[in-house]
Amino acid sequence: MLVLFTDFGLEGPYLGQVEAVLCAQAPGARVVHLFSDLPPYDIQSAAYLLPAFVSRFPPATVFLCVVDPGVGGNRPGVIARIDGHWFVGPNEGLFALLSRRASSVECWQLPHSDSASPSFHGRDVFAPVAARLARGLAPVGEVVDAAALEQASWLDDLPRIVYIDRYGNAMTGLRASSVPGDAVLTVNGHALNTARTFTDVGVGEAFWYENANGLVEFAVNRGRADAVLSLAIGDAISL
Amino acid sequence: MLVLFTDFGLEGPYLGQVEAVLCAQAPGARVVHLFSDLPPYDIQSAAYLLPAFVSRFPPATVFLCVVDPGVGGNRPGVIARIDGHWFVGPNEGLFALLSRRASSVECWQLPHSDSASPSFHGRDVFAPVAARLARGLAPVGEVVDAAALEQASWLDDLPRIVYIDRYGNAMTGLRASSVPGDAVLTVNGHALNTARTFTDVGVGEAFWYENANGLVEFAVNRGRADAVLSLAIGDAISL
Amino acid sequence: MLVLFTDFGLEGPYLGQVEAVLCAQAPGARVVHLFSDLPPYDIQSAAYLLPAFVSRFPPATVFLCVVDPGVGGNRPGVIARIDGHWFVGPNEGLFALLSRRASSVECWQLPHSDSASPSFHGRDVFAPVAARLARGLAPVGEVVDAAALEQASWLDDLPRIVYIDRYGNAMTGLRASSVPGDAVLTVNGHALNTARTFTDVGVGEAFWYENANGLVEFAVNRGRADAVLSLAIGDAISL
Repeated sequence: MLVLFTDFGLEGPYLGQVEAVLCAQAPGARVVHLFSDLPPYDIQSAAYLLPAFVSRFPPATVFLCVVDPGVGGNRPGVIARIDGHWFVGPNEGLFALLSRRASSVECWQLPHSDSASPSFHGRDVFAPVAARLARGLAPVGEVVDAAALEQASWLDDLPRIVYIDRYGNAMTGLRASSVPGDAVLTVNGHALNTARTFTDVGVGEAFWYENANGLVEFAVNRGRADAVLSLAIGDAISL
Repeated sequence: MLVLFTDFGLEGPYLGQVEAVLCAQAPGARVVHLFSDLPPYDIQSAAYLLPAFVSRFPPATVFLCVVDPGVGGNRPGVIARIDGHWFVGPNEGLFALLSRRASSVECWQLPHSDSASPSFHGRDVFAPVAARLARGLAPVGEVVDAAALEQASWLDDLPRIVYIDRYGNAMTGLRASSVPGDAVLTVNGHALNTARTFTDVGVGEAFWYENANGLVEFAVNRGRADAVLSLAIGDAISL
Repeated sequence: MLVLFTDFGLEGPYLGQVEAVLCAQAPGARVVHLFSDLPPYDIQSAAYLLPAFVSRFPPATVFLCVVDPGVGGNRPGVIARIDGHWFVGPNEGLFALLSRRASSVECWQLPHSDSASPSFHGRDVFAPVAARLARGLAPVGEVVDAAALEQASWLDDLPRIVYIDRYGNAMTGLRASSVPGDAVLTVNGHALNTARTFTDVGVGEAFWYENANGLVEFAVNRGRADAVLSLAIGDAISL
């Protein structure tokens, strides 16, 4: 299985061009669009989201992960083998939390490509590598220390809004397992209690809960938390 | 074929996580994203839309249908076999019109799941069941009377806007076959005549027509009916 | 491979209904959603975009191309074989630039269909034809002169914004190969220099560059060109 995790957006030609490369170069693989509207250019938000979505996939799933404001510059591309899955993408921190929390990490730095478009390495560099891995071929590039994936200054959990979904629910970079179950969390001056899920609170009521991927999320039963609490990506959370 | 009919939105990780379950558990099935941006939480609009989209699919198509404001509460999940197709989803009215208009309906109530996330039964409960059915396995759960799918107080047709598409066309819950062909329909104070299709009226002119799925729809030739007529989901229509 | 290039939008049931026809009638073909949110009704913008995306696909790819404000009227449908690829869609100019720049063009006019919905030929006329071609069957319809695809009054390059992507980058109908590499391009009163890519200019700086598909595109490093330069689809560009 080939899984896309990007900030390309659903709109426009970008996802389709990448999928075409994958279909042509790994004809037998299923392609799943896991997350296509990560906050644009926001590597850190993506880095705290990624680990929440990886564990449910079958072993040896290949994840093509691209949030790449540095495309065309000097930032390296990598292949990482992390707890039995493959990850391919630019290395500016996107895999930092995943590798920090993993039992097993191997890493390869991709060679520089002269033929790639300077603005679309997702299509020209990373998709062909992902297709190779999906076909069971060995990784390319130079073995490097797994420490290359780290961002030493980043916290283990990120007390910030990292994504807002179509319902207005606001995901954070905090694992629910890192927060006391009875914590009162404050965001934008709103102090909120926890609930198990939507139907446990009244209609219109705001709360935080452990979402279906283990992250702390702010929500309103049958309402929009982003509107009710004036939330935006990047807003800070405090206990 | 496995067909998704949901209010998950195209954005975010939800469709992708469901598709990953389907790909892993029914590897041979094609997955089609039929409708992913149904009005959020709006079971009734979805219930009047669903029958318009079902008949064109091959026999034994499996429809995974999720509009689920009651997720995590007491509402039951069901499997329904309706006129030769399979439907899986929460039972709060979503299948009411489809079953009311059908020749043949069988129904199974799904067992309660303790391991499912209380906020994402689409992924944890309904997708695995849909994958089973797509593999040709028998339905799970307890056989219940088909009347369990009904909502006795709901009309046979819904004189309301139930969806607005990217062009600004406004679909209603009225079947065109339930409305006289020369009817004048009024919405938001605008009395509109019918036309066969867009090119039969002048540029900028508003009209109603039988859309490609048999529903009454308001439209403007090369314009946006939602803007021209100030339409929103839920607006009432009268003859 | 079956490739969709349309203005249907990602929302709503349209892409899914077309994909269902393709899956049912060409079960072995991969379906790629290349471009689904072309500017609505804007045939000319689509016509200048299409050639930028075609060359990367394997020989005999079938492109289902629909921007169709004239649906249900008298405009003909066509099959075109252009430089080894297949194209199916309405003929109101969508294939004009592609055929003008091609080495080899053959064209068939589709027969009129009485059974098709007057508002959804993408599903009822063009998708079944595309599925036939994807299965390796011969084209249907009457052979016509390739000149039927032309729009004689259209320029070889279109000095206009034809698409704005999720990052706010603005694509034009100008091939970069048609513009001097050191040209200063003016749009909405802003005179802009060129750069190789985003990371070659300062954060917040606007520039034009050859995008990953060979078109002139306006962009801002880590910012939105549409907002910074007040760009909209249709805005004129001058040297």
